[in-house]
Amino acid sequence: MLKLRGNAVVAQSGGPTAVINSSVSGVVQEWQKNDPPGKIYGALFGIRGVLEDNLLDLSRQPQHIIEGLRYTPGAALGSSRYKLSKEEDFARLLEAFKKHEIRYFFYIGGNDSMDTADKINRFANKVGYELRVIGVPKTIDNDLPHTDHTPGYGSAAKFLAATVLETGLDLKGLITSNRIVVLEAMGRNAGWLTAAAALAKREECDAPHLVYLPEVPFDRERFIQEVAGVYREYRHVYVVASEGIRYAGGDYVFSGKGIDPFGHARLGGLAETLKEMIEEEMGVNVSSIVLGTLQRAAAHIASRTDADEAYMVGAAAAREAPQGKSGVMITLVREEGADTYRCSTGTVELSSVANVEHKVPVEWIAPSGSYIQDKFLDYARPLIMGEVTPAFKDGLPDYVHLKDFDLPELRRRLDSDATSVIK
Amino acid sequence: MLKLRGNAVVAQSGGPTAVINSSVSGVVQEWQKNDPPGKIYGALFGIRGVLEDNLLDLSRQPQHIIEGLRYTPGAALGSSRYKLSKEEDFARLLEAFKKHEIRYFFYIGGNDSMDTADKINRFANKVGYELRVIGVPKTIDNDLPHTDHTPGYGSAAKFLAATVLETGLDLKGLITSNRIVVLEAMGRNAGWLTAAAALAKREECDAPHLVYLPEVPFDRERFIQEVAGVYREYRHVYVVASEGIRYAGGDYVFSGKGIDPFGHARLGGLAETLKEMIEEEMGVNVSSIVLGTLQRAAAHIASRTDADEAYMVGAAAAREAPQGKSGVMITLVREEGADTYRCSTGTVELSSVANVEHKVPVEWIAPSGSYIQDKFLDYARPLIMGEVTPAFKDGLPDYVHLKDFDLPELRRRLDSDATSVIK
Repeated sequence: MLKLRGNAVVAQSGGPTAVINSSVSGVVQEWQKNDPPGKIYGALFGIRGVLEDNLLDLSRQPQHIIEGLRYTPGAALGSSRYKLSKEEDFARLLEAFKKHEIRYFFYIGGNDSMDTADKINRFANKVGYELRVIGVPKTIDNDLPHTDHTPGYGSAAKFLAATVLETGLDLKGLITSNRIVVLEAMGRNAGWLTAAAALAKREECDAPHLVYLPEVPFDRERFIQEVAGVYREYRHVYVVASEGIRYAGGDYVFSGKGIDPFGHARLGGLAETLKEMIEEEMGVNVSSIVLGTLQRAAAHIASRTDADEAYMVGAAAAREAPQGKSGVMITLVREEGADTYRCSTGTVELSSVANVEHKVPVEWIAPSGSYIQDKFLDYARPLIMGEVTPAFKDGLPDYVHLKDFDLPELRRRLDSDATSVIK
Repeated sequence: MLKLRGNAVVAQSGGPTAVINSSVSGVVQEWQKNDPPGKIYGALFGIRGVLEDNLLDLSRQPQHIIEGLRYTPGAALGSSRYKLSKEEDFARLLEAFKKHEIRYFFYIGGNDSMDTADKINRFANKVGYELRVIGVPKTIDNDLPHTDHTPGYGSAAKFLAATVLETGLDLKGLITSNRIVVLEAMGRNAGWLTAAAALAKREECDAPHLVYLPEVPFDRERFIQEVAGVYREYRHVYVVASEGIRYAGGDYVFSGKGIDPFGHARLGGLAETLKEMIEEEMGVNVSSIVLGTLQRAAAHIASRTDADEAYMVGAAAAREAPQGKSGVMITLVREEGADTYRCSTGTVELSSVANVEHKVPVEWIAPSGSYIQDKFLDYARPLIMGEVTPAFKDGLPDYVHLKDFDLPELRRRLDSDATSVIK
């Protein structure tokens, strides 16, 4: 087959991860190997970069920057949650693709982004514009189907487990009035990240003692009984709960903060809600830990396995597209039955990924609903293996930023229509 | 002078730090050098270990465990916030000291602990019991006087700055509805740790944009003006605020959670308070980050300088006491006017340390009151230099615990009189 000549665009979408830039690095370095079909551009601030003609020629970046992306958190190209919906958007995309002779589109993102990639692919097919669209998976939520796991998850899991290990030691060794810790973990509908807290436990008495996933309906009374049970046993309790836990009726345990642009309920404040519940019922002081975006940004303790796999899926996308693949997402395929963990890449139709959420299987959750099974640990442990040691400068990680991209300036310009400053 | 024969006790008090065990390591290893005057015991769960006769002979710990303490967070000996006040307590201490032939007492702690050490020293003098009491400084708050800084601070500062750096990149690169981050930092009355967030900034536009210390009275109206000002400039804002900020009248911005055993107001929920303030006034979504005890436990990114100095103050205590020093706290003395940072140890009377709080000097705070000056950065940067890389096992730091010490079991026993489980 004749290689399709033309340029490529890579874009980042949705929330960053500790290794989302490693995928960009993989795309770019693989693309540049052996007679690339054209240039490779970075779309600045996600799909908006294409719509608004803000493209950066990544071929002109120094290699040490492209290499440094492997260890730099945040979305180096800029990311957005822009939802492609209007007809004009698609017309404008087509115009931009034609103008810059774009024939390859690599979209790094999660559920919503795979839906967007799928739509772009269908649209290009419909109008007869030859475009190769490849989705590159990314989400700390690990909720994409048809892939063993998603890049970004391993590093978030490693950081979360290290946090529980370290703060668990702090809690265990100090007799104080704050005897209970509630840690709120990210995860809207899938408990993968929350469950990873259990990787911290070595002995029965170690943190975490209780783990609440969104897969299991939450019951206030049972919760208090469980916390009290652990408290009687150890005189201290470490609870990890997903921000997305709900009551059997479907209401979030914490809710009422409105809706995001994709129509999902906004979460937050779950730790505070559980803290108040326990203090009210048990009369014991509770400390809370809300790591927020640090869960997806803590590249200083990224998983080597995860960083390498993030690179690998990016490289696979850049390799597969010129060979004719389109309309697919790159997947991670774990070698079955192997003694040691091995993982390679595969592909799956975008349409079968878009908007499907992969949750923690019921059989990996303890019958009590408040802990997880060893099967999950066997699944997750290989994903946190290995350390990435970023270069340090002046005592802090020395992360890179792209040359010729004044991110704050562009952001200010794009954002000039943002909601008013003072109501 | 003839060396005073007798055994030693080392105890940990108050909140742990990432390097509090490094001081234990320093005490023990130095004590064991050249003809020690006796055995060295660890008091389990702070001063309560002496009162309740729970002492662990640390001479019998394998060297790899004592060495591993240099990199293990949490209080390995157990810690407590027990306040020595009753006369019976002192009588009981004396009894225990006599029983175990204790002539050396090393107390690792902060303000309240130095007060306790001072009281024990005076009591021993009063009753004519020859006892050498040495305080070993420890607090992430960095609020002890007469020492350039305190072990524990550098590691907390490094972790906090890395957090702001990484989550700042996350915020800057993502155009989303959550455009403002509020991070709540530990620090009751002194803003040292909060100020360390500023170490993360490389360029003007970088996080943090606003830093609020307890040294400066908080003004709601000015706060909103400042947040709005940064927002207009960058369309995103990163705020770091100490949990202990107060209004000019003296009320905590967040308050109302009762009193701890030392009579200090309990803090928490400040991030939530500021978040609501901004959302109410500006109509912009705010994310909060509450790192809680992770600030004092994140040994995986401990400062090498800090870990080494924590060891050094422990070793100095074990060296000075047999030479006749008593009633003092070990201090860190920074070499003045040196091109590169150099630090040695000194001593100061316990009585001049006890209950004195060392705050951030006004001239190190920006005139606006909402940022800090370069002078502070010059002071703090050397303290976060160097990395400690703990051994990893199964993807997580491989921390040690003491042999022959069933911490959970003892804790359960000591805690059996804890407040009732269900009100």
